[in-house]
Amino acid sequence: MNAQATEAGGRRGCFITLEGGEGAGKSTQVQRLAAWLEERGLPVVTTREPGGSPGAESIRELLVTGDAGRWDALTETLLHFAARRDHLVRTIQPALARGDWVVSDRFADSTMAYQGFGHGLGQNPVEILSNLVLDGLRPDLTLILDLPVPEGLARAGARFAQDGSEEHRYESMDPDFHDRLRQGFHAIAAREPDRCTLIDASGSVDEVADAIRRAVEAKLGRVMA
Amino acid sequence: MNAQATEAGGRRGCFITLEGGEGAGKSTQVQRLAAWLEERGLPVVTTREPGGSPGAESIRELLVTGDAGRWDALTETLLHFAARRDHLVRTIQPALARGDWVVSDRFADSTMAYQGFGHGLGQNPVEILSNLVLDGLRPDLTLILDLPVPEGLARAGARFAQDGSEEHRYESMDPDFHDRLRQGFHAIAAREPDRCTLIDASGSVDEVADAIRRAVEAKLGRVMA
Repeated sequence: MNAQATEAGGRRGCFITLEGGEGAGKSTQVQRLAAWLEERGLPVVTTREPGGSPGAESIRELLVTGDAGRWDALTETLLHFAARRDHLVRTIQPALARGDWVVSDRFADSTMAYQGFGHGLGQNPVEILSNLVLDGLRPDLTLILDLPVPEGLARAGARFAQDGSEEHRYESMDPDFHDRLRQGFHAIAAREPDRCTLIDASGSVDEVADAIRRAVEAKLGRVMA
Repeated sequence: MNAQATEAGGRRGCFITLEGGEGAGKSTQVQRLAAWLEERGLPVVTTREPGGSPGAESIRELLVTGDAGRWDALTETLLHFAARRDHLVRTIQPALARGDWVVSDRFADSTMAYQGFGHGLGQNPVEILSNLVLDGLRPDLTLILDLPVPEGLARAGARFAQDGSEEHRYESMDPDFHDRLRQGFHAIAAREPDRCTLIDASGSVDEVADAIRRAVEAKLGRVMA
């Protein structure tokens, strides 16, 4: 819990992360959640990974473009943690210290699910890097948007067709990869039930936003008051 | 020692790294050493860090351009190890497996000296990352080109004035940084005397090249025969 007294005597903000596979609607829900928190008078910073700071965004370019096999799983993991470190020290830590709430589209759980589980790197390297890089910061709440793989890929494919984004390295990977990815997110949620809430992302945007609000109130309602 | 029998029954090549601060003449000496090894009939791959493979060269761009304070020491270290991992799996390991000799302008010792000692990150994070990333590979021989700091900076400055290179993030750091860097290389040499040889780089190019050849013959003469 980061919602402790700050050095200036104010209250630290909370750190909320949204996680999930492709097409789960994370970025839409980040905006919905931020708007709802702001309506309640809370200062909110929305951000995303990989990226979220100028340096991390430049590392993102290396990660989201190019062939699916451009990087081996460990190189990719190191790039993600380099970007995460920059995001942490330039954006997240200063925002929490100011008392802002931070809502991030992805954080360390994505590396565990994508590289640790999806690419078969294993959990150990990801845990070693988390311990080395994160200065002990854990999200106060992680919302894992869960969706059957075919449905998520269909949604992501529709988005790609619509906006022509070049950021589609992951959508181009085989369905088995996405199965392992989803299993990884389930394993993370099962291991840390106090931090993680699995959200059924198959409903409408409004339905998912409602489920997210209920989860935030259940976990952080006391801090928001 | 990588000079073992390969799976195909041939002999693995040796892995030689050149290390040192700015202006020590590493890149010139890499070329001289490679030419000398080739004259002796050995297949040689010359390479450099950060870089040495297409992916690692793209990471290099993030490391050698921009302000001196662009990255915190840990982010920078993670980027170096991401580049090193790509260099290792795409260039160094395949070359050694073919039986080639690999001569690299910088390797992991540079990260220990620059980030661990120079930027005060400490040795522990660099050791953790070396253990995680390098698949146990150590250079067969590391030649540390040693030069008093003012002399090295003067040489590097002259090179910058001549070729207008934009790769001068490190030359722009203060002299204390370069003192810590040199002390770091001395500490590495003292800790692993069997692997590392300190070379006085204050002589002429020919004198330094001679000292390097003597060190290679002393350490690897048996394997070269």
